[in-house]
Amino acid sequence: MSAHPRFSLNQATIKRASLAEAIEAARAAEIPSVGVWREPVAEVGLDAATRLIADSGLRVSSVCRGGFFSLPEGPERAAALEDNRRAIDETAALAAAGAKGSAAVLVLVAGGLPRGSRDLGGARERVRDALGALEPDAASAGVTLAVEPLHPMFAADRAVVSTLAQAIDLAVEAGPAVGVVVDTYHLWWDPDVLAQIARAGSLGRIAAYQVCDWVTPLPADVLLGRGLPGAGHIDFGPMTRAVADAGYSGDIECEIFNAEVWARPFGDVAAAASAAFSRVVAPHF
Amino acid sequence: MSAHPRFSLNQATIKRASLAEAIEAARAAEIPSVGVWREPVAEVGLDAATRLIADSGLRVSSVCRGGFFSLPEGPERAAALEDNRRAIDETAALAAAGAKGSAAVLVLVAGGLPRGSRDLGGARERVRDALGALEPDAASAGVTLAVEPLHPMFAADRAVVSTLAQAIDLAVEAGPAVGVVVDTYHLWWDPDVLAQIARAGSLGRIAAYQVCDWVTPLPADVLLGRGLPGAGHIDFGPMTRAVADAGYSGDIECEIFNAEVWARPFGDVAAAASAAFSRVVAPHF
Repeated sequence: MSAHPRFSLNQATIKRASLAEAIEAARAAEIPSVGVWREPVAEVGLDAATRLIADSGLRVSSVCRGGFFSLPEGPERAAALEDNRRAIDETAALAAAGAKGSAAVLVLVAGGLPRGSRDLGGARERVRDALGALEPDAASAGVTLAVEPLHPMFAADRAVVSTLAQAIDLAVEAGPAVGVVVDTYHLWWDPDVLAQIARAGSLGRIAAYQVCDWVTPLPADVLLGRGLPGAGHIDFGPMTRAVADAGYSGDIECEIFNAEVWARPFGDVAAAASAAFSRVVAPHF
Repeated sequence: MSAHPRFSLNQATIKRASLAEAIEAARAAEIPSVGVWREPVAEVGLDAATRLIADSGLRVSSVCRGGFFSLPEGPERAAALEDNRRAIDETAALAAAGAKGSAAVLVLVAGGLPRGSRDLGGARERVRDALGALEPDAASAGVTLAVEPLHPMFAADRAVVSTLAQAIDLAVEAGPAVGVVVDTYHLWWDPDVLAQIARAGSLGRIAAYQVCDWVTPLPADVLLGRGLPGAGHIDFGPMTRAVADAGYSGDIECEIFNAEVWARPFGDVAAAASAAFSRVVAPHF
């Protein structure tokens, strides 16, 4: 069965695949678009990666990921900012290599509290400052930096950006080349999420929409507790309709972190994700 | 060392103690106040429990817990509401038995999504309706119903009330006998929490303040991942000052769900919780 024309397979869903294998799995499932991760790009080098993408005929819906810039001033922070500048350039190159309709969107995960620090407010200010520093680079490269609010259970160790409202505020303060990621898994619990999706849309800031389900019980490693759409507790209707009503017309990624999913053959996972998307998400836009 | 005069030991912190053992542990550590759970009260019966409390000279800072009323209409929901009415009466009796300064506060956990349901909005409406139905009973018993927003990672399976803003909205809509619980563990990540604490105070709705730390990595059962103040990532200064500035002058409970803490002798835990509170929380009010 052909995939939905706006469906994109985020590479994290088949984490163990090389870029070539991910492209093959997407094409075999007739999926038109992929979300690319930097690690498998680095494995083959950027030039080879852009050729693979160009030859595939696939769109690139996003590049994952930059960020991790909540550290205080010092060499580690400087290195993180430099790495983000490289990621901006990679994003521009990969999106240019993708088929028409590709999006030059770099997904950013803010980073957690620095080791031993309890200064959540300070970490959030440093994320704001980093976005301000990187925005001109992104703008001149034609890249959108997409701030991804992560579920609050990751606030200490992965991302001090925890709500869509906060991500929108950061994007607006940083400038026009910064947007937000709406990810159902991270945001579904928020009583304010539909209003904030509308707000993000009215400000032209929705850079990506990712779908993934919340399953219980959470696994021992909560990072890996994500399910295919339909496997968990999320009603994809309200958020999907809100994203559509907010004017987002780009690709929609399925991004799953799940050890059991990762253990399955890449082609099976691609087909299952595509089918789940068609069944559970696509009817709502 | 004598405990801080506003410190209260929530019984969940020494979950395996009977009411008599909890009282003994609190008195041995010179803790002036306890948060009582209904299960150990039921073990001895309400009359015996109120005598134990009265004889102890301790204050009662809250009774845990009611709620779990997110179910749709039917016998289970009716039974939950009846159980909450019994809990209101128990709260009134236990607070009356406690020393001067006891608080007739019943902590409410909303309940999660009903089995098989993905209708988060509907579950939240039913919580609102249940609070509206119970408010007159609480008011006539002189009891405050304290809605506790739980961390968003519990939204599916324990509590569809996930933010302080949402809890305040529910309290205001239900009426003057409904307030909110501010618990550092559940709320520390919220970029809006200090503003919402101020709002709750200005509306006279802070019914309880509970302290508990967020530790990583989360354990396999995330319900049991709570630490003594100082053991984790939370800066207790900003929230504690905000609660004080908002006019809250009641007891402050330490409530820990942690399998390792539960395995230790009750007296040791009571003393450790008291010392942690004096060191990490008390300096901020």
